[in-house]
Amino acid sequence: MHQPDRVSLREVAPRDGLQNEPPVSTQDKIRLIDALSRTGLSRIEAVSFVNPKAVPQMADAAEVWAAVEKHPGIRYSALAPNLKGVQRAIDAGFTAVEVVISASESHNQANVGRSVADSLAEFPDICALARDNLAGVEAIIATSFGCPFEGDIAPGAVAEIVDAATEAGIDRIAFGDTTGMATPRRVNELLDAVDTELPLLMHFHNTRGAALANLLTALDRGVTEFDASVGGLGGCPFAPGASGNVATEEVVHMLHDMGIDTGVDLAALIGVAALAQDIVGRELESGVLRAGPRTPLK
Amino acid sequence: MHQPDRVSLREVAPRDGLQNEPPVSTQDKIRLIDALSRTGLSRIEAVSFVNPKAVPQMADAAEVWAAVEKHPGIRYSALAPNLKGVQRAIDAGFTAVEVVISASESHNQANVGRSVADSLAEFPDICALARDNLAGVEAIIATSFGCPFEGDIAPGAVAEIVDAATEAGIDRIAFGDTTGMATPRRVNELLDAVDTELPLLMHFHNTRGAALANLLTALDRGVTEFDASVGGLGGCPFAPGASGNVATEEVVHMLHDMGIDTGVDLAALIGVAALAQDIVGRELESGVLRAGPRTPLK
Repeated sequence: MHQPDRVSLREVAPRDGLQNEPPVSTQDKIRLIDALSRTGLSRIEAVSFVNPKAVPQMADAAEVWAAVEKHPGIRYSALAPNLKGVQRAIDAGFTAVEVVISASESHNQANVGRSVADSLAEFPDICALARDNLAGVEAIIATSFGCPFEGDIAPGAVAEIVDAATEAGIDRIAFGDTTGMATPRRVNELLDAVDTELPLLMHFHNTRGAALANLLTALDRGVTEFDASVGGLGGCPFAPGASGNVATEEVVHMLHDMGIDTGVDLAALIGVAALAQDIVGRELESGVLRAGPRTPLK
Repeated sequence: MHQPDRVSLREVAPRDGLQNEPPVSTQDKIRLIDALSRTGLSRIEAVSFVNPKAVPQMADAAEVWAAVEKHPGIRYSALAPNLKGVQRAIDAGFTAVEVVISASESHNQANVGRSVADSLAEFPDICALARDNLAGVEAIIATSFGCPFEGDIAPGAVAEIVDAATEAGIDRIAFGDTTGMATPRRVNELLDAVDTELPLLMHFHNTRGAALANLLTALDRGVTEFDASVGGLGGCPFAPGASGNVATEEVVHMLHDMGIDTGVDLAALIGVAALAQDIVGRELESGVLRAGPRTPLK
């Protein structure tokens, strides 16, 4: 199997994690982001600019972002569902934004309240706005490996969105395993179908236990960028009680033992996972948090 | 990545699972084994013959075995720590036995109360006894990927046990990831070091989230036999609260989506995972049990 020397991780607990938890205080969000900024992570998805009525967890996004420490070596990003959200992110000072679109029509309707075509139609304006403000813009394609409403998603449908996004001027693509439907087969089939020069990132949920197997498959295919959430923070709104994002410390723990560099201090990261657990007030489902690393860390 | 057409699973919940839980009734053990026998599984580790003072959970092993339905297509096995236990298993009517030995000196002392050399010295007598009774005998090498007391285990030390076991007349080898210390790197290094014609099986724990990634690595290296435990039943005595064995339904779910046959009816298996959960009276940590399969089963 092929493996790279280095993997780049984006930490998504402050946004994707906390967005799927009962609301926590602004102060706790700031504490979490500041703690993550001291672990060696190079990318952090900090907040989202979404409708506060739909997602009260992120209503204080601008306030959180204004207060956190900004480390020069870290790329902080904000997620937005549309042009308006991207504008708010840029107004708040972000230079990296992510716009989310679903490969599945019904999930796009449920998630951002419009058709896939309507989401795509806004991409050129989003890209122009980002360009005018010297910001990078990534398209996150949710339900890339399957949809809780529609079932399997044809890899060709995902590839068409990649093509349209590339055409519109998007800088990067992320494939979201929104409800943990990916398997090694789905990862391979998606990568077989997609043809782009843009940097690709994969975002796996561990809903059905296969997140690290999927990550390994993606590594073998040359993907070197992944999302992960400290403590596995976040859930899956379509599978109550099920685990959500793959835990960053489980990813780092495995990659480091394989000799793959992430730049992350695993001991510090486990400390932040414990902090995240305190903040949300429930036991998080991270094996490395519970059992510790396989051997003591130096 | 290489993948086989078919994988053979051995279900270990009745033994390895229940041995790490507070004792359950004889009747519940029989119910669990009988339910497993109807899922299409071809191998079930039913009980162990160990010191009932050390492992009260298995004190009724002969009684359980006498009462369960024996399906002709299923290979049922019993685990034993020594010659005496193998004799008891054979006396009870088993034609497949597993003798456990640790790659780590201190774990062998903790687990079976003697040195690795003393365990190995009994292997020829165990093999002769099995042969005389037309029984197959497998050596399970615990702590093959790391030891909670000693840390990393040299793959060469595991290979030496494989050689000694082969020499003694053992029929099959299993590598136990006793406390979830395996990673894809450790799987590869172990398979690089071992040189044998005997059938190999791997037994992964999901303590640190990497069980399915390890399984995928082993598949790529040609291993096609794995242990798994329905509902992920069982724990890890050295990591309280941590998850134990990889859940059989998570393994089957991933393999089937990859087009790899296991012979198992996934819907029936999930039903048995729910039964196992009822029997032990705590929520089991199986994503497929909690969230269901990625798409509805036919």
